[in-house]
Amino acid sequence: MFLYEEFEEILKIIKRKAPLIHHITNYVTANDSANAVLALGGSPVMADDEKEVEEMVSLAAALVLNIGTLNQQKLKSFLLAGKKANALGIPVILDPVGLGATKFRRDFIGEILTEVRPTVIRGNMSEIANLYGNSARTKGVDSSLSSEDGGDDIASALAQKYNCTVAITGKVDVISNGELTYHIESGHEHLSKITGTGCMSSSIIALCCASGKPPILGALLGLSIMGISGEMAKDRMNRKEEQGLGSFKVRLFNGFSEFTLRDYQERGKINEIQYM
Amino acid sequence: MFLYEEFEEILKIIKRKAPLIHHITNYVTANDSANAVLALGGSPVMADDEKEVEEMVSLAAALVLNIGTLNQQKLKSFLLAGKKANALGIPVILDPVGLGATKFRRDFIGEILTEVRPTVIRGNMSEIANLYGNSARTKGVDSSLSSEDGGDDIASALAQKYNCTVAITGKVDVISNGELTYHIESGHEHLSKITGTGCMSSSIIALCCASGKPPILGALLGLSIMGISGEMAKDRMNRKEEQGLGSFKVRLFNGFSEFTLRDYQERGKINEIQYM
Amino acid sequence: MFLYEEFEEILKIIKRKAPLIHHITNYVTANDSANAVLALGGSPVMADDEKEVEEMVSLAAALVLNIGTLNQQKLKSFLLAGKKANALGIPVILDPVGLGATKFRRDFIGEILTEVRPTVIRGNMSEIANLYGNSARTKGVDSSLSSEDGGDDIASALAQKYNCTVAITGKVDVISNGELTYHIESGHEHLSKITGTGCMSSSIIALCCASGKPPILGALLGLSIMGISGEMAKDRMNRKEEQGLGSFKVRLFNGFSEFTLRDYQERGKINEIQYM
Repeated sequence: MFLYEEFEEILKIIKRKAPLIHHITNYVTANDSANAVLALGGSPVMADDEKEVEEMVSLAAALVLNIGTLNQQKLKSFLLAGKKANALGIPVILDPVGLGATKFRRDFIGEILTEVRPTVIRGNMSEIANLYGNSARTKGVDSSLSSEDGGDDIASALAQKYNCTVAITGKVDVISNGELTYHIESGHEHLSKITGTGCMSSSIIALCCASGKPPILGALLGLSIMGISGEMAKDRMNRKEEQGLGSFKVRLFNGFSEFTLRDYQERGKINEIQYM
Repeated sequence: MFLYEEFEEILKIIKRKAPLIHHITNYVTANDSANAVLALGGSPVMADDEKEVEEMVSLAAALVLNIGTLNQQKLKSFLLAGKKANALGIPVILDPVGLGATKFRRDFIGEILTEVRPTVIRGNMSEIANLYGNSARTKGVDSSLSSEDGGDDIASALAQKYNCTVAITGKVDVISNGELTYHIESGHEHLSKITGTGCMSSSIIALCCASGKPPILGALLGLSIMGISGEMAKDRMNRKEEQGLGSFKVRLFNGFSEFTLRDYQERGKINEIQYM
Repeated sequence: MFLYEEFEEILKIIKRKAPLIHHITNYVTANDSANAVLALGGSPVMADDEKEVEEMVSLAAALVLNIGTLNQQKLKSFLLAGKKANALGIPVILDPVGLGATKFRRDFIGEILTEVRPTVIRGNMSEIANLYGNSARTKGVDSSLSSEDGGDDIASALAQKYNCTVAITGKVDVISNGELTYHIESGHEHLSKITGTGCMSSSIIALCCASGKPPILGALLGLSIMGISGEMAKDRMNRKEEQGLGSFKVRLFNGFSEFTLRDYQERGKINEIQYM
């Protein structure tokens, strides 16, 4: 099957090259993103001073721009890193955390999108709808809209507008490159009850895109890994004293480090959306 | 029983509203605080740039001001956020981490208390005694004084001075609103051997206060949740290969996410202090 | 046996004094370092504003200078803290994270080494080789060189140059004070697959050096604790649903908090290198 073979190759490339994934990200979930990338065979680095981001990007195979805990001291770093990545032709994954919550974030995402071409934009429905111009109010950094609220059209339209791949994560993930649109129905609701699963999703997509394969494939594999690892985590919480979100988070990382294509074969739930 | 019914209502409100808890906090324990709030049904957000904190506060149901890893770049953010919260009438939980260790922190807490009215102040005995004017020297961010060292009087006096609720956490927690003073004897000494339990306590108190119930109730329920979850965590470490603080921390989060009022009924240890 | 008795005394001093370990460090692994220090009986503090670092150092028994997520706002803090520690005679552990990746880091490490005398320098082979003047290119923050690539000579030469102890961590750890050189063969490859084990190693070395014992002993014990705890963590992953790096990390912290000298007796693998 087409996707299966592509995914197999992506995973092989990751194992072989251990690609360096540079992050400009937030201090809440940086540790989780680093461990997710490591568990899947990549090599994470976090650095955000404007004096070094371009040089760090030049060593990297992909760049994550995540605006959680954004501050004025690092605005320029996002732009420098993003432009350098564009110049070098390495994938840029943009995670517009909490977009819509404040003008500061909206303005800055506008600035990023003027100066940097993202390869993949990943966010929850509130964030992506806001990017689309929808007035949906982000409640903090969580989604108050589900991906069913017109997600296919929004993802597809945004992907065309920015000539990139757009991934809306939620109960159902929507992924579109403007031509093809997919749904992923993997996952477990616990994933929305620990912090960092959105940020980790962006990091894992970056890792998959670092393979050099088309971004739509990187997004599909990355979000399948997250969803399936979440399902496996829940399935492995079989002892009474291990119920709860602490044990779930531990097992999620177990899922990342033990993930193989066989898990995708057994559990993968990617569907291409047919437009009539 | 009075407290029980109030607590039940607070927990119901949290589950129904998933209140947004805005944090200006430190990079050491931000992930833990976010996960604690999420596990209990709230929605955490961390943001600290002066350009966005007021707008973020206006979306929130409570604000945590935690001065761990304080730096000059975010001083103004604490004041802007605190004043906005006061103007909007949402609870402000002040966590004076490491107060007493340095003049920088003492001066800034003085400034906060001049410009912002806290709803609850939570700290260990060294921190609170320092706030009271006691010369007790904070050893880093840990307590070198126990809450038995005159804690009742200090908590009550400070609560009256700042017209707020004061919570001193330690082996015995002391909580006072200046009129009523309570002790909580829940918990386990392991809670003092992992980082972040103080910060998480402040976040959980914020979540409980976001219900709109009197702050003294929010503090009592918040610290009971922390103490009881710690006890349950210890009780569930029954396999030989799971002894140790790593497993304890995982189970603490399990405790948060599985906490119900039944646990409080079975284990709650709140006592009102009777002055003669 | 010589080392055994010294180690016993170091561990006793730690338990008795709970030494305060001040960190200027990165936001990716700060939580892990704090928990490692706590689990072993120390008291961690993280503070990095130039207005308070000197005062914080004056309360501490050791200082960790870790340049992960370095930024311009805290450069001065590293220098102020380091000089203060030197003036007070407390150990300074320098962790040149990602040195070699960027000019910004190389220049700043040069500045630190001009103004501050480190007690121990700990890094992976790429970082230490770069410090030595080798053109080995650091790949992000991970090592692309193993400690076998001339590590003994580099560690010894650097130790003599800076009159300190140098620890190169990797599959085999190399530790030298310029006179004596040791190898440690403890550990498990999983340690390289979670973030923070390097940073935690530096923090644990700082904790051991805070005992006042010779730095070479602090480095040997600190790295033995890390390696042995990693081995024990792996050994305790005996249930099918607990395989993976999430469970490994939890058990690593269990290893720290349960570590006793008996574990060193059973598993310690320190060898002094004999020069012909």
